[in-house]
Amino acid sequence: MITELADFSVQPDHHEAFGQALAQGVATVLSKAEGYLGHEILASQETRGRWVLLVRWSTLEAHTVGFRESSAFAEWRALIGPYFAQPPRVEHFDLTDASR
Amino acid sequence: MITELADFSVQPDHHEAFGQALAQGVATVLSKAEGYLGHEILASQETRGRWVLLVRWSTLEAHTVGFRESSAFAEWRALIGPYFAQPPRVEHFDLTDASR
Repeated sequence: MITELADFSVQPDHHEAFGQALAQGVATVLSKAEGYLGHEILASQETRGRWVLLVRWSTLEAHTVGFRESSAFAEWRALIGPYFAQPPRVEHFDLTDASR
Repeated sequence: MITELADFSVQPDHHEAFGQALAQGVATVLSKAEGYLGHEILASQETRGRWVLLVRWSTLEAHTVGFRESSAFAEWRALIGPYFAQPPRVEHFDLTDASR
């Protein structure tokens, strides 16, 4: 299991609309992808227009190959891409310690 | 409930040592704080020296006032601060959507 962390920046006045696009994109596209295990959408309290999406994938390749090279990726980007104020910063992480 | 996201950057050759300091600091200091509800520690696969700490707090003030103004905060920073290559980026988030 790996965790994708995507850090998005949109114009402040698109804050709510982007949050809705993100939730819609996850519900209708991302969550249907092979290897998708779960997600969290986080809205910054300090920086209007900053959103963080955490996605748990079964493997790194489920995201970087399976999803990104699928036609679903174009649908996903069509929903959220128009809001980007700059390219999102996306990296993959290992969960080394947790308590819930 | 709010989520703190702290994005840390340390020298690449301090990557493992910092991960250990972070886990130790959470176990011995942060997790004892009033209002602490849970955490995740994430290590970047792409950027050696990048770590992300997610902390769930009961309220914003539990972190910004209760913890940061306590003597425990000095202990916490003594454990992890010496590794910082630059000041961590710390913000607070609302969880707007999730599936686990």
